[in-house]
Parts: sequence; structure tokens; C-alpha cells
Amino acid sequence: MLDHPLVPGPTSAIEKGPWHYGADYVSVYFRGDPFSLKQIVPRPFVVDDGTCTAYVCEIISVGESGADMVASRPDRTVYHEAAVGVKCRFKENTGVFFPVMWVTTEWSLLRGILNGYQKRLADRISMTKLHPLNPGLNPISAGAKFGGFCVKGPGEALSLEVEVERAGEPSDLPSFGATYGMRRFPSTGFGQETVNEPVEILKSNSRITDVWIGTGSVRTELGVGGIRPLFGAVYRSGFTISGSRALKG
Amino acid sequence: MLDHPLVPGPTSAIEKGPWHYGADYVSVYFRGDPFSLKQIVPRPFVVDDGTCTAYVCEIISVGESGADMVASRPDRTVYHEAAVGVKCRFKENTGVFFPVMWVTTEWSLLRGILNGYQKRLADRISMTKLHPLNPGLNPISAGAKFGGFCVKGPGEALSLEVEVERAGEPSDLPSFGATYGMRRFPSTGFGQETVNEPVEILKSNSRITDVWIGTGSVRTELGVGGIRPLFGAVYRSGFTISGSRALKG
Amino acid sequence: MLDHPLVPGPTSAIEKGPWHYGADYVSVYFRGDPFSLKQIVPRPFVVDDGTCTAYVCEIISVGESGADMVASRPDRTVYHEAAVGVKCRFKENTGVFFPVMWVTTEWSLLRGILNGYQKRLADRISMTKLHPLNPGLNPISAGAKFGGFCVKGPGEALSLEVEVERAGEPSDLPSFGATYGMRRFPSTGFGQETVNEPVEILKSNSRITDVWIGTGSVRTELGVGGIRPLFGAVYRSGFTISGSRALKG
Amino acid sequence: MLDHPLVPGPTSAIEKGPWHYGADYVSVYFRGDPFSLKQIVPRPFVVDDGTCTAYVCEIISVGESGADMVASRPDRTVYHEAAVGVKCRFKENTGVFFPVMWVTTEWSLLRGILNGYQKRLADRISMTKLHPLNPGLNPISAGAKFGGFCVKGPGEALSLEVEVERAGEPSDLPSFGATYGMRRFPSTGFGQETVNEPVEILKSNSRITDVWIGTGSVRTELGVGGIRPLFGAVYRSGFTISGSRALKG
Repeated sequence: MLDHPLVPGPTSAIEKGPWHYGADYVSVYFRGDPFSLKQIVPRPFVVDDGTCTAYVCEIISVGESGADMVASRPDRTVYHEAAVGVKCRFKENTGVFFPVMWVTTEWSLLRGILNGYQKRLADRISMTKLHPLNPGLNPISAGAKFGGFCVKGPGEALSLEVEVERAGEPSDLPSFGATYGMRRFPSTGFGQETVNEPVEILKSNSRITDVWIGTGSVRTELGVGGIRPLFGAVYRSGFTISGSRALKG
Repeated sequence: MLDHPLVPGPTSAIEKGPWHYGADYVSVYFRGDPFSLKQIVPRPFVVDDGTCTAYVCEIISVGESGADMVASRPDRTVYHEAAVGVKCRFKENTGVFFPVMWVTTEWSLLRGILNGYQKRLADRISMTKLHPLNPGLNPISAGAKFGGFCVKGPGEALSLEVEVERAGEPSDLPSFGATYGMRRFPSTGFGQETVNEPVEILKSNSRITDVWIGTGSVRTELGVGGIRPLFGAVYRSGFTISGSRALKG
Repeated sequence: MLDHPLVPGPTSAIEKGPWHYGADYVSVYFRGDPFSLKQIVPRPFVVDDGTCTAYVCEIISVGESGADMVASRPDRTVYHEAAVGVKCRFKENTGVFFPVMWVTTEWSLLRGILNGYQKRLADRISMTKLHPLNPGLNPISAGAKFGGFCVKGPGEALSLEVEVERAGEPSDLPSFGATYGMRRFPSTGFGQETVNEPVEILKSNSRITDVWIGTGSVRTELGVGGIRPLFGAVYRSGFTISGSRALKG
Repeated sequence: MLDHPLVPGPTSAIEKGPWHYGADYVSVYFRGDPFSLKQIVPRPFVVDDGTCTAYVCEIISVGESGADMVASRPDRTVYHEAAVGVKCRFKENTGVFFPVMWVTTEWSLLRGILNGYQKRLADRISMTKLHPLNPGLNPISAGAKFGGFCVKGPGEALSLEVEVERAGEPSDLPSFGATYGMRRFPSTGFGQETVNEPVEILKSNSRITDVWIGTGSVRTELGVGGIRPLFGAVYRSGFTISGSRALKG
């Protein structure tokens, strides 16, 4: 059988989960304007104090039983992602909701939408990469600069710059709590089934290494209000997503 | 508010419908193997006699209230599409089901999936285009050749060639009947809402012009069995899609 | 033999010429600042009165003996181009020099550089396309709007908008005279051969049709100084380029 | 001034050199058919015993004074490359000549052509990447598989697979000697300057680390004759290219 694009399987756009991720991040934590943020975070999530995160990353991702695809179909295992996340509350819990998450491949787009991320397809995401053997580049150290940008359509959807000041610890990165999302599949005609549910994305196996902390700046077309950068960070992270669970209001 | 990628609106990936289309096609009608086709056409649709269509086209598309986007956001109004359609029956009716339809933009991908097309994102679709003022090209006439291909990942997903023999009429193109599809949005965790419904895509305003008929050949990675070409055609078409309606078993 | 990328031949990036073109243009004529323009037009060309042209177009192009490639290799016959041209003088003649011409394919990039155009590779060029059978679109008429943009790297290299007011004639489009360029291939080490010559591109068979004239605006990252739009135009054109000839100082 | 695309400078497609490289390779060494190889290696280079190398790699590259571009313009510092190299002799020396080297960016394409590489623009190059924090992936060890492919136009230009068996040493990788190339810039009309010179690319600062050796296979559209794989390798490498020097016949 030929799998439907949204129904995980060997001929679908989406591999069967759980899905494993290893990612390299350039990120900036900032304060946006809570009133503006309210316009881009749907109920039942409630914007917290305006704390946000923006990042650009490269991700290596495989499905639970598809680790061999890094060799047989490498194009199905590498993508870039750029996103803005907003600190939110749901009932008594806190978490992060991403109004938009741009990605560079079909499979990360559809997989994410299925799980509840509001993913969009970027035209291009580019970010700083170093290489230890490049004779013209230094290893990361205080003063090293990183940057990244995401282009969609006629212009820049997101760009950010980080200058690192010191090696850090995973605990230097704020934990927002849960990862929230919206699964939606509206009707296009009479009598159709629909989906409209807030979810918590089920993340596990999280590890963070190679943290560097410094200053940062961010620009985005997303309506986050005036941006007050808090700090910038560069780090690596790994985690597993097994799907999402419906949140009952 | 920021629209969810799948919920039509000004900041969604999908414009509000109905959606209007104007398209230039290079297509080949062929017979595939009914047993093979049965593997790629889901129930409740029943493969007919093995008649299929394959095409590559360029489409100019706008939402009902978004015609000005051809100027303000041309990237949101032009895309390429390649597809294989299989003649099917549903109850007493006949129609066409497209096991896969490759497109080149996010918005045509997501809009199609929402309406029930099993769309996938192509890496590249290329097809013959003529230009009346190019001093090295002749106007279309008997013997003129057309071609197109769709690449996804490491190789060619579909390619076709047509050599036209004579001007034709819209009635030279077989009418398969209705356009069928599947709307699916499966669960990724406990207690989630899901969608799984066969649909008829609601097409209207169909017009066909500039028909040329000839011979054709087609290659595809899709499992259609041995291909016996029936004929090739080049034509222009316009139509409107207003959504889809659920088919009750 | 395998042809060198720059040596025209069947396995080169460049087909053997002459090369034939059929193109659809959205263009804006404007005045830039002559002092700024002087910084982007190399000697021996002398900036005239600041008159410039900017355009975005789609081009169908074939080599003299390669018209069949529209069917066998359509990807080698279609590209998009965006450019800014500056009215110049060379000795007693006038002409246009294009400080930069962005294109979307390898073969148009290298073919152009060989002939003397200062071509660059765009990440994306998008422009208004209409379709006579699209039920949501009107045929071109007074008030119709057109637009186009070119993205390279993190941002927009060029964008323009045109609102047409009336059908026009080819004579409504200013003729700048000759098309000038620079053929350059500098040394990268001791004792190497080099090329550094101003040229006139050899254009013939020019035809223009479907002219519409109106107002326009243009934005560009190119340093043209303050832009005063003169008028906008939409038209189709065909021509042949057979190469270029060296201009002797 | 606006730099010509081929004349290194801040507004050219090419940064000023020397250029520094850090690269991750998946490669296969193989024997091709010397008679076939003779058709794709130009004089004055003489095909040796048929030994060839094929690879896919990701490269981080910066110009001598442009290391900050990894942050300010990351799109100008990362690209992918795929190539086939043929062991050759020039006079009493041996070296490698690359009949074709596909790359994914404008600047690596033009920089390479200027230095004497017969570069072409790929539509896509994809290759295995691992990530130490991905919970679904193991660190490299005996039995690990790697792959890569390059797509151009309607199909695959090159693909390769490697299964590593053991950690190796830089000395496990055959040294072909010098890197040869052809600088060519032919005439397109009467009286034009031209370039046609064999060169040696000036490489220095070479370092190789993280070598793993195993078996491999390769497919390519390039006419190398029957392919007999010798071995596969995965490694990292850094080097500097300062330009090229003309070889006198």
C-alpha cells in the first residue's frame, strides 16, 4: 500500500515514530511585548511574562526503526529549523508554545504539523558552522560570533546574532517546562471530520552539551512586539519525540 | 491572530477558498496493471480497468479574494505539479484518484492535503515551455515534442514525453468523472481526535482549450505496473476548487 | 570528450550559440543618482543622465541547434532573470550596462559571464503570471498590477511593482542603444593568462509585443542612489545573442 | 566599485583568497576504465592506471580575511561538493584531475572555475551526517554505513555508499600528488582575449583526521567505464588554496 502523506509509514512523508533528534543551536532569549504575543498564541495557552526564545538549528533526525536512513536516504535525515517560542501557561503548568517553526524539508514540515507544531516551510535557513580543521577558523572561545537567518518568500522571516562570552552549563539555559502545540485539521466542506485540539508534545531523552553563553540580538517578521534581548547561547542538544497528547480544557 | 498553517486565513499557509486555477498541461494517458494499482488506491475506491493519467503542469492559482496576490506575492500564486491519477469507481460513480501529486510549494502542498489530495513536495518539476517570440522556436504544430519531469530525493519520481500529431478538442480528453481523495489526520498519542474520510473534491468552472493530441510515454517510480501508453496530450485548463465533501460509505 | 564548463558544447554548462530568447518582462524605468551609478559602472563606460531600467522576467532560451531541448531537457531552457541596467556612453555611442543581472540557473549564469554580462546566481526570482483560463483572474487591462522580486542570501536584491494604465507600442520603450558588458577572467597565480575587455553583446532579431505602460516603483540593494521612477512597463520580447565583440579603447 | 563576479573582492561572487577549507568526506576509491577516462581528461594530463576517487562532502570555507563571514553571512561559508577525480600524470609528476566537481553555491562554483576546477552547479547534494546527542544514532564504529548523492537536472549525477570496517590513518588514503585543473575562458566573437591553460592548484596546510576505512560502491553518470571499487573511506580534512599556477607544456 502507498501510505497517505500524513499517516506514518515506509512510503509516507512521515517515518514511524518515536523520532530521535540531534541538533546544533544558535539561539537568543528575549523579552517580547506580552500584548503582541497574545495575538500569536492561541487559547488555551496564556502568555507568561513575555519571555521568548528564538533559534536557528541544524537537526539530524531518524525514526525509531529508521537509523539506517542516514546512509540510504540522507536527505530524509537532515534539516534546518528556525523558530520563535513563547513562554506560556496552561492551567498550573508552564511551557513553551511556538507560533511558528520554519523547516527546510517536507517530512519535518508534515511530521511537525501532525504532532502539533505550527510548522511552515522555509525557502532557506543558514547558520554558522565551524570546522576544527579549517586553517582559517578558530575553535569556539570568548568573543566568537554566530549567526543565522531564515528566508521565506520575498524576505527574511528571522535572523539572529550571538557573541559568546563564556562556556556555560545546561542549567544556564532557562527551562520553559512543557512543549505545547495545536493539532488542527479543519473542515473544507459539509459534514467533514475535523481536529482542533491543544496538545503537549511528548519529549524525552533530553540532553544538552557544549553550551556557550553570551549576548545576542534577533530580528523577526513575527509580531512579537519590541524585542529586548536577554542573552544569546550556542549549544548542542538531543531528544526524542514520541508524539503528543491531547490537553483537556 | 496568527493562523494555524492548516487553517485558511491571511497568515496561514493556505488562503481562504474557493481557489481558482489556470494550468498548462503535458499529459500522457496510459494503462497500468490493475493488480498493482490496487496497492496504491485505498478503499473505498475501486480500481477500474487500469486507465491512468500522468501529467506535469504549471499552475497559476489564487484564492477567491486574493487575486491581487499575483502582484503582491507572486510566489504564492505560481507552482508546478506532477501527478499520476487512476480511474476508479465509488459506488455507482466513476472518478479519478491520485495516489500521489507532487507540488513545488508549501501552500499547494498543505492546501491539497487539507482538501484530500495525497500531495507531496517535489524537489523540482520542469516542463516544456514555448515562447512565441523566441527566434529559435516554432509554434506548436504536428511533430512538436513536449516533456516534463519531477525529481524528489535522489531520483526521478515521474517523467513523460509527448509528441503531438494534431490539434484536438476538449472532448478528445477522457473524462474520468469525479475527483476523489482521502482526508487523513491520524492520532499521535492517547485520546486524540482524528480524521479519516474519503472525499470528493468539489471542482467547478472547468474549461479546456488549446488541445493537441499525439503519442506519449511515461516513467514513474510509483508502482503502477507495466505501462501501456494510450496517447499524449498538451492542453490548457482552468477550474475552481471550493473544498471537498465527505463520502459516506 | 567532456567539455569544460565554460567552453560551449554538448557536455558543457553552455550550449553552442547563437542563443535564442523569448521573454516576458515586468520592468520599471527610473532615474538613479549619476554619482552613485558611477561607482557601479566600470570604465570605459560613462554613465549618461542617470536613466536606468530594472526588470524581472521569465526566459525560454535555446541554442541554435538545441531547440529540441525544450522537450528533452526543459530545465536547460527555462530560467528567470532580474537586473538593473544603466544608460551609458562608449565613445560616440550610447547603450546599457548591467552592473548586475541575477539568474536562476547555472547555464544562464555561465553563458552570460562568458558573453560579458556581470551575472550572479539568485536564490529565487518570482514574478506575476496570469492565465487566461483561471476563473479568478482578469485579462490584462488598465489598472492591472504586476510585481516581481529577486532574493539572494538573507534578503531581497531587487523588487518592483507596476500598475499598467494603457496598451502601448514597442516605441514606448526607450532604446538605450547597444548592450555593453565586461569579459573578465583574472589571474590567480604567477604567469597566468587573463581576460579583461569591455565588449558589446551582439544582439539581433529583436521583437517586442504585448506592451502595456503605466506607473512603477523599484527597490534594490544595488547602490543606484535615490530612485525616481519614470514609468512601468509589461511586455514580451524575443531576440538572439550570438556572442560579443571586444571594444577597443 | 561593484566587483565583477569573477574578480575577487567584497562585492564579487568570490572572496579574496587564500581560501581556507574544512571538510567532512564520504569517499570511494575505485578503478575506472583507462580508455574511457581518457575521454574525460584533457591534455596535457595523461590518465595513469585508472585509479579514481569519488566523494561527497560538506565544506566550511572562508577567505583569508573573511573568517567573520561564518557569522555575518553563513550562506557564504557552507557548501556541499561531489566529485570524481582521476589519477593522472603531467610530465614526471602524478596528480589528480577532476573532470567534474559539482557544488551547491554560486561562490564555490565561480571560485573553483577561476582556479581551474571544472565545477558545475548541483541541484542537490545530500550525505550522511551523524550527531552525538541523537538518541537513535550510534557513534561511528565498524559496520557503520555512510552514503551520499548528487542530483543535477532530471537525475542522479553521482551516488556512493561506504561501510566502514576499522579506524584508519591519514596514510591509509592514497596520495595522488598534485591537484591539476584547466583554466579556460574562450572567445565568443572576433578579436577577443582568451584563456586556455593547464594549471596546478596551489594547496597547502593539509591535515586529515578521523579516518575510517571500509568497503564502498559508487554510481555516476560520468563516463568512467566499468567501476571496480577499491575501498571506501570517511574522514575529515582541512587545507588552504591560494590559487593556481600555470603549467608550461
